[in-house]
Amino acid sequence: MARSNALRQPSAAPQDVSNPLGARLAIREGSHTGPTAGMAPGCVQGNLVILPKYDAADFLRFAVANPKPCPIIAVSEPGDPHLAAIGSDLDIRTDVPRYVVWKDGRKTEEPADITPHWRDDLVTFVIGCSYSFEQALIEDGIEIRHITEGCAVPMYRTSIPTTPAGPFHGPLVVSMRPMTPANAIRAVQITGRLPGVHGAPVHLGRPDLIGIADLAKPDYGDAVSIRDDEIPVFWACGVTPQSVIATSRPRFCITHYPGSMIVTDLSNARLSVS
Amino acid sequence: MARSNALRQPSAAPQDVSNPLGARLAIREGSHTGPTAGMAPGCVQGNLVILPKYDAADFLRFAVANPKPCPIIAVSEPGDPHLAAIGSDLDIRTDVPRYVVWKDGRKTEEPADITPHWRDDLVTFVIGCSYSFEQALIEDGIEIRHITEGCAVPMYRTSIPTTPAGPFHGPLVVSMRPMTPANAIRAVQITGRLPGVHGAPVHLGRPDLIGIADLAKPDYGDAVSIRDDEIPVFWACGVTPQSVIATSRPRFCITHYPGSMIVTDLSNARLSVS
Repeated sequence: MARSNALRQPSAAPQDVSNPLGARLAIREGSHTGPTAGMAPGCVQGNLVILPKYDAADFLRFAVANPKPCPIIAVSEPGDPHLAAIGSDLDIRTDVPRYVVWKDGRKTEEPADITPHWRDDLVTFVIGCSYSFEQALIEDGIEIRHITEGCAVPMYRTSIPTTPAGPFHGPLVVSMRPMTPANAIRAVQITGRLPGVHGAPVHLGRPDLIGIADLAKPDYGDAVSIRDDEIPVFWACGVTPQSVIATSRPRFCITHYPGSMIVTDLSNARLSVS
Repeated sequence: MARSNALRQPSAAPQDVSNPLGARLAIREGSHTGPTAGMAPGCVQGNLVILPKYDAADFLRFAVANPKPCPIIAVSEPGDPHLAAIGSDLDIRTDVPRYVVWKDGRKTEEPADITPHWRDDLVTFVIGCSYSFEQALIEDGIEIRHITEGCAVPMYRTSIPTTPAGPFHGPLVVSMRPMTPANAIRAVQITGRLPGVHGAPVHLGRPDLIGIADLAKPDYGDAVSIRDDEIPVFWACGVTPQSVIATSRPRFCITHYPGSMIVTDLSNARLSVS
């Protein structure tokens, strides 16, 4: 893929992916191709939704009406791939390891670069991601099971509807982390201070009440083990827009590939409201 | 019982129990004799533990080591029945509707006035009470079942030990309020801001994990109904000291009678840490 400026040339030295610009450059150069978990610790990573201007206003209304699954971190000007407010030299077309291109609600391609798809009318939405609150939980001594087990967080489509806006509608997707009740209470307190990255859980303890029949069969991600003294704790999930896009079928859309996020310069610590 | 100053004389006009001094005077005069729930709305009510000086230092260490069941609102000077910091013209000997006198860990009397028992070495502890956080939950639109059902909150001795200090030890007592999972999450956030009145719950969803075999058989208070879509939510309870006194058997102690609290001038709103 042609890269147009000097920073996009492969550099002789490997990038330092512990800082956010280094992480983005490593991804841009193709030296990092997998999930972004663990890159630039302490920095906010974001879910991505890119839509043409004619759908973007409705999607922004959808996000505002559904702040728990879709906490907005940034919205670009139409056609501008550089979101300077969230990252220096950031290029949204090349700085995510893998994307999903959607046409009429169907996935058509999963490229590592969307420069060929770029258009002057595309608006980029960066949406808060659970990596930020997982860091806060780990710092408080709470084990995150899917991290311990080295897999993706289990995610489930629920019977909870999102609030529709324009063409956008569909069920809430939640991520699940098993915890002891005492840790679940602590996790509510910790994540409740972080509304910019999904905030407090939306549900706990009773998957049947939100339409989840079997925790061992997630709709996205991987199943994790749940111990006898644990309850499942559910957070609104940034994969909700992808489920909504599949349901609402906009003509054209690009999202990140689950787990392959945009790494920003924003500090997780800055997201706390208290 | 002889009352020594003018304010303790029955007044011609009934006291206004919607303000805290009026509530205390109505209790002192004997015109209010039952539970204090609903008196002086918006004001902090407190659990009471009164101990001789030789046990008081250990009990203070016990309270500091167990802040969730024993959040300290005030501690008196030895022998001083007036806690001016928490109420004007407050007299701890007469301003609680009913007391329990304990000798060697056994209840010996449940008087309406402890003036005959007063000694120059008695230290008064006022401990935060769930009435304050229940008000905050109700203001947020959360139903409190035992209030709806017009009975006392159900309380249970648990398998969770308190942290011992000196002679004081014994199991944590919890109060239980059934809620939908979504309201339970909200309740964690609301009560977590109120550490001075028990703070966030200590447990939820799984009574078996904390040694509660049957929610229909509380150790104190009354059973309440639990709906199919609800989970039990447990808070550390200010009755814990009474259970601890029965276990630890100090030579002499006075507590309030459950439900008959000391009404203070402190505002519930001032207890919030954010």
